[in-house]
Amino acid sequence: MTTSPAGEQLVRVHNLGVSIDGFATGEGQSRETPFGHAGQRLTEWFFDTAWAHEMWGSGPGGSRGVDNALTESAFRGVGAEIMGRNKFGYQRGPWEDESWRGWWGEEPPFHTPVYVLTHYPRPSLEMEGGTVFHFRDASPQDVLAEAKKAANGLDVRIGGGPTVVRDFLAADLVDHLHVVIVPIVLGRGVRLWDSLEGLEQRFTVETASSPKGVSHMIFSRRTS
Amino acid sequence: MTTSPAGEQLVRVHNLGVSIDGFATGEGQSRETPFGHAGQRLTEWFFDTAWAHEMWGSGPGGSRGVDNALTESAFRGVGAEIMGRNKFGYQRGPWEDESWRGWWGEEPPFHTPVYVLTHYPRPSLEMEGGTVFHFRDASPQDVLAEAKKAANGLDVRIGGGPTVVRDFLAADLVDHLHVVIVPIVLGRGVRLWDSLEGLEQRFTVETASSPKGVSHMIFSRRTS
Repeated sequence: MTTSPAGEQLVRVHNLGVSIDGFATGEGQSRETPFGHAGQRLTEWFFDTAWAHEMWGSGPGGSRGVDNALTESAFRGVGAEIMGRNKFGYQRGPWEDESWRGWWGEEPPFHTPVYVLTHYPRPSLEMEGGTVFHFRDASPQDVLAEAKKAANGLDVRIGGGPTVVRDFLAADLVDHLHVVIVPIVLGRGVRLWDSLEGLEQRFTVETASSPKGVSHMIFSRRTS
Repeated sequence: MTTSPAGEQLVRVHNLGVSIDGFATGEGQSRETPFGHAGQRLTEWFFDTAWAHEMWGSGPGGSRGVDNALTESAFRGVGAEIMGRNKFGYQRGPWEDESWRGWWGEEPPFHTPVYVLTHYPRPSLEMEGGTVFHFRDASPQDVLAEAKKAANGLDVRIGGGPTVVRDFLAADLVDHLHVVIVPIVLGRGVRLWDSLEGLEQRFTVETASSPKGVSHMIFSRRTS
């Protein structure tokens, strides 16, 4: 996926695993459990792709079908990302120290500016490979304006977690939403769909199941 | 689907539409709105099948792919159905009169004994075509024992609505669960998955999307 023919910058969500009971992350995030009690269950389909194998050095192999194609597309044509603080780290409240530099090591897989929404801003972090984390206490509209400018004509990805995605959907700022329905009942955690009744009316939807048993649903903003 | 090779009677749920936020019926059921504010949105894929066209006389045509195959299979090898009172009618509390004979006219599509769970039993109703409605104030285990006996070696279908299906799942009485994930955010209604955390561990799951944009998920009880 690249920008639209008209050169419009799209706002995109990709690869967001959601349980059949509507939770997009589990309960009890910690340094050891980034997805809380969900563990790897919402992301297993993703880490089994060839793209993820290459990216995280888990060796050759991995699937090269629909899961992989959709995974890859998330990383094309994107010039900036916006994420929530809980995607960046497990800490809550004021930063006790600023040594935490994200879950991804010194070379994160973003390679663009990344805007981290937090009520506790801190200095920007310049990482290897082009990723720069900026910390902003801002509305969805304001941080998106800044990210679009930084993206230099490319699209902006909303990277999650579920609270941030929901806020951007509620503000009707999302053009492309790719969720992956995983056939598990998570029971607890952060619900993605709350307060979004009738969301589908603004989108066309395409559905594709994969041999992993998950179901990709791709919502594209209606243009007429 | 028929009974298992060993002759075991299976307990089956079929064709149960569920929104991506986990609701299997809407809010505000009435005589005019059997599915509440959900309207036809959870069942549209079903009524567009060739099987439903034939069954409800909406003329020739209808789809003959995966939706239709799965729809049809629900009606094979079943010797009795158990349903909740809200599937049978829109009334609540004591029956004000007993003239209501279900949503389906004088020849309902069941053609077997049907056990309606209600706190307000009333005399059985013998309909045309072999359907007999029995009204029972009983536990899932007890009504299932009666239905299995009446099914005469064939399977028992749990016909819904969501509360009854959830009760039978919670009691671990279901062998086959076919839900149809519909890409809409319903926002309100009756949630199917509440209190069923970890349900998937008892089942293997197969997923198949259809051109209607829905995603069939078929849970089969693990045998080992």
